[in-house]
Amino acid sequence: MFLPPSVEETYPDSHPILWVRTGEMGSKLEGASRPGHLDGVATVVAKPFNLIRPERAYFGQKDAQQVAIIRRLVSDLNFPVEICSVPIIRAKDGLAESSRNQRLSEANRKDALVLPRALQELAQRCANHEPLNLDGIRDSLRQSPGVELDHVEVVDAATLNPISTNIVEAPAIAVAAIRVGPVRLIDNIELNPS
Amino acid sequence: MFLPPSVEETYPDSHPILWVRTGEMGSKLEGASRPGHLDGVATVVAKPFNLIRPERAYFGQKDAQQVAIIRRLVSDLNFPVEICSVPIIRAKDGLAESSRNQRLSEANRKDALVLPRALQELAQRCANHEPLNLDGIRDSLRQSPGVELDHVEVVDAATLNPISTNIVEAPAIAVAAIRVGPVRLIDNIELNPS
Repeated sequence: MFLPPSVEETYPDSHPILWVRTGEMGSKLEGASRPGHLDGVATVVAKPFNLIRPERAYFGQKDAQQVAIIRRLVSDLNFPVEICSVPIIRAKDGLAESSRNQRLSEANRKDALVLPRALQELAQRCANHEPLNLDGIRDSLRQSPGVELDHVEVVDAATLNPISTNIVEAPAIAVAAIRVGPVRLIDNIELNPS
Repeated sequence: MFLPPSVEETYPDSHPILWVRTGEMGSKLEGASRPGHLDGVATVVAKPFNLIRPERAYFGQKDAQQVAIIRRLVSDLNFPVEICSVPIIRAKDGLAESSRNQRLSEANRKDALVLPRALQELAQRCANHEPLNLDGIRDSLRQSPGVELDHVEVVDAATLNPISTNIVEAPAIAVAAIRVGPVRLIDNIELNPS
């Protein structure tokens, strides 16, 4: 049976003074809404990498920025661990599974479906080698009833840098966040110009 | 024979985006003269800890702040390595050995001896349970010919926080930096109220 490290092992000197800082990668997208949060993630993930020395570590692709940052943590600080991302699981209506979905009313949930549909639309345009027309997607999300758009961006899958061209040529992801009723929902999709 | 990791292994993605940031520990004392330097040290030391996974790593006590920061790196991020500090080596005249000493003229070198003497004086006062009178030490270094005082401080050996009392009760170090002729010299001494 696996026993996780104790609190005393994990925090031998109470709060860290030294932190892993994620810089530009952690200050945009989700990091813009929660300043410092992804620095905390990177720091607290370094600890079990050192305490447990796993061969592989698994992270949900739903938190795409977190996965990209942890991959970069591993390459920048040379942690000998393989990062595996676990695919997003979607309900039949297309909404990405999340514990937050319980807090959506039936009406909220219907409104929220514009999020996976917008991402699916971007993936389809990319597969068809069509222009993404991200501004059009943004406008339609802004006009969608019951929805407040936080962001929708197409970014490099590894660096999270925005992709400025309208046609995707390298591996990219479309990432988005909206607010619906009481919750903020995030989702993302791979763009593969195959 | 030990082969160090290659450049490609050490920097697989060119410059790091994620850095270990040393916060308050790395911005004072030597860090005040070289902003960001100790963040670079902490980041670049994390790499061989992961690539080589040593049981022990040795660092010269002459860079006392660096040693304290690396000890904190290890405890804050739970690196499974033992940090060993290697004592300062002193010439017969008391000056701590350093490659920089070659750039001192004979006159410079005589002037520089106030540095180890001031630290020795502090250690003696501590051992005698006398008040440290740090301000007096500072004044005498400021008045010393050929010498420009950067700092002399008594700090907690682990946190590098200044010790405000005039009588030392916990393990502490006196750290100092002066400029003599063309070089900046640093030195430090343990204060043990035994």
